[in-house]
Amino acid sequence: MTDPKDRVAVIGIGQTKFGEQWDKSIRRITLTAAGACLADAGVGGVDIDGLYVSNTSTSSFIQQEHQAAMAADSGGLLPIASTEVEAACASGGVAVRHAYMAIKSGEHKVVMVIGCEKMSDISERAIADTLMSAADREWESQIGATFPALFALLARRHMMHYGTTEEQLAAVPVKAHANAVNNPNAQFRFKVSIDQVLRSALVADPLRVFHCAPISDGAAALILCRGDLAEKFRGEPVWINASTQASDTLALHSRPHLTTFRAVKHATKMAYDKAKVEPKDIDVLELHDSFSISEIMAVEDVGIVEKGKGGFAIEEGYTSMKGEKPVNPSGGLKAKGHPVGATGIAQIGELVEQLRHTAGPRQIEGAKTALALNLGGTGSTAVVHILSKE
Amino acid sequence: MTDPKDRVAVIGIGQTKFGEQWDKSIRRITLTAAGACLADAGVGGVDIDGLYVSNTSTSSFIQQEHQAAMAADSGGLLPIASTEVEAACASGGVAVRHAYMAIKSGEHKVVMVIGCEKMSDISERAIADTLMSAADREWESQIGATFPALFALLARRHMMHYGTTEEQLAAVPVKAHANAVNNPNAQFRFKVSIDQVLRSALVADPLRVFHCAPISDGAAALILCRGDLAEKFRGEPVWINASTQASDTLALHSRPHLTTFRAVKHATKMAYDKAKVEPKDIDVLELHDSFSISEIMAVEDVGIVEKGKGGFAIEEGYTSMKGEKPVNPSGGLKAKGHPVGATGIAQIGELVEQLRHTAGPRQIEGAKTALALNLGGTGSTAVVHILSKE
Repeated sequence: MTDPKDRVAVIGIGQTKFGEQWDKSIRRITLTAAGACLADAGVGGVDIDGLYVSNTSTSSFIQQEHQAAMAADSGGLLPIASTEVEAACASGGVAVRHAYMAIKSGEHKVVMVIGCEKMSDISERAIADTLMSAADREWESQIGATFPALFALLARRHMMHYGTTEEQLAAVPVKAHANAVNNPNAQFRFKVSIDQVLRSALVADPLRVFHCAPISDGAAALILCRGDLAEKFRGEPVWINASTQASDTLALHSRPHLTTFRAVKHATKMAYDKAKVEPKDIDVLELHDSFSISEIMAVEDVGIVEKGKGGFAIEEGYTSMKGEKPVNPSGGLKAKGHPVGATGIAQIGELVEQLRHTAGPRQIEGAKTALALNLGGTGSTAVVHILSKE
Repeated sequence: MTDPKDRVAVIGIGQTKFGEQWDKSIRRITLTAAGACLADAGVGGVDIDGLYVSNTSTSSFIQQEHQAAMAADSGGLLPIASTEVEAACASGGVAVRHAYMAIKSGEHKVVMVIGCEKMSDISERAIADTLMSAADREWESQIGATFPALFALLARRHMMHYGTTEEQLAAVPVKAHANAVNNPNAQFRFKVSIDQVLRSALVADPLRVFHCAPISDGAAALILCRGDLAEKFRGEPVWINASTQASDTLALHSRPHLTTFRAVKHATKMAYDKAKVEPKDIDVLELHDSFSISEIMAVEDVGIVEKGKGGFAIEEGYTSMKGEKPVNPSGGLKAKGHPVGATGIAQIGELVEQLRHTAGPRQIEGAKTALALNLGGTGSTAVVHILSKE
């Protein structure tokens, strides 16, 4: 057994409700999540010796960069070392990985990670254009491609190659919405039917509005510490057994195949090796479902379903709450909401609840080992975390 | 003596010329610096197992975020873990610190850090507004404050409190330009006189155009590795003995004093403690001189000159090439240029040359120990590195 002082534990989680928050500033939502997290961890601000902030494109969304200094300042944590990372929609996972490495390096002991995003304040056209700065501006965004359009290409290819159906794609948001009903922080707490999804407005064929994660405001926070310190605070540590990250081409056209996220496969393989587990050992997963096809490809690329069978598995309930491998009990990006910088952090927050067995009506019974996958761009960045109770 | 495998070495440096580069894309300048760095280090792309990219506001400057994935992709380094950090003008130093921690954590062995910025492509008004997203948008930028205006407040206060004169402020760019003549990568390779500075256009009283670092395009790169691996590559390691970071309030109005960068004092103190050296041991420094007053306050706050005496020390040549404590042999941000994300990395590149004793006409004789200070915002983020040959 590894010595606790050589391990990294998650000892606190905190989150705001995700959704439109017109009446709150980014400072306010950031502090709300941070405050909840400190209380949950039984940690005082004075105990925190490192801070990570994750968000994307804040110079466009709210004309405010230097979020790391702002969070340290408004959180009363000065003169703490505070760092902002950006990796498009994978920013949150990348921030958690850097908090993990900061502790493993011996430079820090107790680190807070905050992801926050305020996306509602600008026009929808400006949001779409800003989000597209995470794709290849010269080769994709410039000629009018949007993320729904790029993911629609992936979906069409998957359908052509593996026989994935529109009904299978629709099963993804149906499951997400069903799960989100039990998540008090979720943006959309209502069920939808296959029929409703199939009749919803077409965004980029075959993706309809119910296949696309929403625009959201919100924040999520975690506190990580060196393993031997966990008992000094809340205790009940949830262990990070692997934290891995990989990259793929920025533009889709440079890839040999469109039906696999290579970065996901690479990061997941490294994670299984480091954590010394296999897909069969994973009890619950939070996978990046920015679009329905992302989740179908993700269940395949993390190895819980054979390549090409992702749509079938979801349709058959294999990844439902009562299924063999429950995916996104939180409601996922689709129904929980997707405030970009907060997403990767909220995924791990959900898994911490699952491993503490405090997820209430969302609890996956007996969950001991969990996996989170956070993606950036069209899979250009992938971050994987494997967590466990022991 | 610490075991080399517990230390982190810089084994490669590379840089483009700084200045206006209308004919080159950000991909091109990034790859130019990276290629030079690989050649310098004797490292192949296949040896690199981690990548950090530092820049700021690219969603505004060039409408392209997700620079970490782009650099990994265009550099042929896939599926490498690639991370972008943002901390305003301190982004470069923060990226170096994270490469350092990534190696110390045991998660990585050989890491490249690239800083790049393409600032010339948008209008001057858009540049000014984008840069101001690193100050406090709600309380500073929104009401029309610019960075020259904020640093002018610091300068006026320093003049009032310590008797610093306009001639002393002018001595900063005079020294910077004199040093840059010997730097082939510098943006401005010509001398200026005190009289020229004092007669140059007023930007924000007392700061004139010659007191302000320019808008630049450019990139700089480093390769760091675990100490015991250095001899496998170029050898001639330059050791990182401390890498520290601290934060101060985002807005100036929240600080108790305007004549001290508290984050600098804090980060420097931690760095001296970790490296087990004192100011008297430092032979050469690269200090953040975005405005003349920044360098005057910095020489005081890093402890090589008594508080209040910074202007006098610079005027008397204490920090000149032949002085007791040479500061900015590279020409500093003022004359070498200031492509924001590249700055903190180029500072360390200069110090590596100084410690290798390969700086040619810029060489500080017998330099053994060096200190770099990189600042973000009005001192809201400070990063300090202490390097040595042994």
